[in-house]
Amino acid sequence: MAKRLMFEKPLGMRDTLPFFYNQKTKAKEKLTSAILSYGYSMMDTPLLEYHETVGKMSATLEQQLFKLLDQQGHTLVLRPDMTAPIARVAASQLKNAEFPIRLAYDGPVFRAQQTEGGKPAQFEQVGTELIGDHSSYGDAEVIALLVESLKQSGLEDFVITIGHIGFVKAFFNDLLGDDDETTELLLQHLYRKNYVGFREDVKRSQLPSDTKNALLSLLQLRGGEEVFTASKALARNQSCMQAVNELKQLYKILNQYGVDQYVHVDLNLISHMNYYTGILFEGYAPNLGALLCNGGRYDTLLPSFQLNASATGFAIHLERLIEALDVQEEEDVRMGVIVDDDTHAEGIKRAAELRSEGHLVLLQHVDQIPDLIKFKEQLNDSIDLTVKGGGLDE
Amino acid sequence: MAKRLMFEKPLGMRDTLPFFYNQKTKAKEKLTSAILSYGYSMMDTPLLEYHETVGKMSATLEQQLFKLLDQQGHTLVLRPDMTAPIARVAASQLKNAEFPIRLAYDGPVFRAQQTEGGKPAQFEQVGTELIGDHSSYGDAEVIALLVESLKQSGLEDFVITIGHIGFVKAFFNDLLGDDDETTELLLQHLYRKNYVGFREDVKRSQLPSDTKNALLSLLQLRGGEEVFTASKALARNQSCMQAVNELKQLYKILNQYGVDQYVHVDLNLISHMNYYTGILFEGYAPNLGALLCNGGRYDTLLPSFQLNASATGFAIHLERLIEALDVQEEEDVRMGVIVDDDTHAEGIKRAAELRSEGHLVLLQHVDQIPDLIKFKEQLNDSIDLTVKGGGLDE
Repeated sequence: MAKRLMFEKPLGMRDTLPFFYNQKTKAKEKLTSAILSYGYSMMDTPLLEYHETVGKMSATLEQQLFKLLDQQGHTLVLRPDMTAPIARVAASQLKNAEFPIRLAYDGPVFRAQQTEGGKPAQFEQVGTELIGDHSSYGDAEVIALLVESLKQSGLEDFVITIGHIGFVKAFFNDLLGDDDETTELLLQHLYRKNYVGFREDVKRSQLPSDTKNALLSLLQLRGGEEVFTASKALARNQSCMQAVNELKQLYKILNQYGVDQYVHVDLNLISHMNYYTGILFEGYAPNLGALLCNGGRYDTLLPSFQLNASATGFAIHLERLIEALDVQEEEDVRMGVIVDDDTHAEGIKRAAELRSEGHLVLLQHVDQIPDLIKFKEQLNDSIDLTVKGGGLDE
Repeated sequence: MAKRLMFEKPLGMRDTLPFFYNQKTKAKEKLTSAILSYGYSMMDTPLLEYHETVGKMSATLEQQLFKLLDQQGHTLVLRPDMTAPIARVAASQLKNAEFPIRLAYDGPVFRAQQTEGGKPAQFEQVGTELIGDHSSYGDAEVIALLVESLKQSGLEDFVITIGHIGFVKAFFNDLLGDDDETTELLLQHLYRKNYVGFREDVKRSQLPSDTKNALLSLLQLRGGEEVFTASKALARNQSCMQAVNELKQLYKILNQYGVDQYVHVDLNLISHMNYYTGILFEGYAPNLGALLCNGGRYDTLLPSFQLNASATGFAIHLERLIEALDVQEEEDVRMGVIVDDDTHAEGIKRAAELRSEGHLVLLQHVDQIPDLIKFKEQLNDSIDLTVKGGGLDE
């Protein structure tokens, strides 16, 4: 084998060594336990999908898709998210289920990376989809369940920011009309949360001064419930008002759930996922420099699969959750039974007894251990049946 | 979206709907619990690897590899098995661990299919790798753990067939020497377990009659311990004898483990995986028309990653195990709390109480239910807070 690549992995690909694997497993169990308790059913879809269907619907940038040709000449993609595949299933195999339906998932998704430098090309999402409920109660359930799941996983300090894509769209449309170039520029700033750039570009523009003031005031519409009142002066049209009213209703229900202390309102919030149609949200943890989770309402995705149904859901970036949890290293507590030819049969019995008591026990022939002292050091306890008397070491 | 492909999945790709997902989860938990109890550590590797490294080492046929080009021009493959990726990790990130090391995994692997007709292109493997133990004790541990795992998963009726690649190779080499064409032809028959074809081609051949008789006698070398004695008449060279002695030693240790009743000896056994170098084995369940699990010793794979270490392991085909388990359909027991605007807050409390008692509870606003009667029918129990008196339905 050529030595150059021997131990290398493709760009953005990572191994999951035992300690991190255990952390992921523990977190997943807690998340899925919360999700199942809300009556959701776990499912999975294949890792490869047709580009023409799920690939295009996923709203992932073309250059972020891993593409390959199958032997029939179709372009396939490694799934970039789970929402579009689950929409496919809901609109086909599950279309006769009793709606609303509650589905959940846990699995890897893929985003091709252009450069070295940190971003994973494969990561794991745990998420939910509530399909066929177009009410604020549905939006609230998804957010309440997100909060509950994160809390169950052990995360204490986090914020869910809620916004409404309809507000931002109607607000810009009202102020900038057909000026797509300025709209696009400013939306890019909002997407990147580059408020400095936003301010500079507004000030630098040739727009009328009251338009400039309105645009700059938008940035103030972030905080608690008071944002709803403050938005009234800016929300000039019916669509903006409707979006704010939906958010108010949502906030009220989140209050019933008792999770409003985790929620911030942000009327600047937009997403790179262009399938969102209403409420959308993002979750952050203070020690994490990246998005922890996100979600929202996507009422046009299922119709594009010929199913007349609205939907809302969330996805948690599992590896980032582990990072945010910042768990101290805690190895498995393993015992060893060390044997030789004469004591192997006895070792089997001893190991079986210890396993039946719940211990994790490795049985090892001494002749295969290069360094007995170091081998024992990695174990919490060991029984050495090669020593006369067969005593417990520690 | 073009309607033609809308609901289609790529060849050999399958959705995992909730019932099957739950079955898989339950079986996985039982398998991994057994594996962990033997002191193995779970890990994972990325789904994409370089073709030049893991792709070539995996011993999977080129046309069965899913290949794609990355943006740097390297050929990537969707991992066709887990053994080669784990060898890569063992030889790099884990090379300073205390050997022997015990690793395990659970994840999807890929084999591109050429035609419609049943074979999955993605399937899940649960498996183990014992690295750095070249003894029969190591081989026996892996087979004993395989038996233990299958029993824990609930499978009662199965057989593990053990053979030795060294026996078959030395036997053919001794009888047929450089006649690669005949050797290849007959090995293909053995690989396909086409004993009729094997007999016909031996009889039809121009080989000397004692060679023919020896080849035909090989087919008798399947059964219990008596095979070891029977092989003596046929095992003409040192390599054959050594292979049989290894198998005898293995059988003796499996007897210590008390799993010999699950084990058949088969000196015809060969594998499509050309990295096996010694003991190899396959598992079957009577109601399953395909291989349930397999494994063996592969002592040259790690050296090809520049790590001087032997290894042995098994892999269980999870979906086939579920098929073999033949579990009766058993839906999740879910409760529903049906609410309206006035009772939503109360519904949250009732649902939370029930969840804290361990129930799976969905809370649903009545206005979003298209068919209330059918909706309730899918639940094991429901509390309808929209009815005066808010009574329990059933």
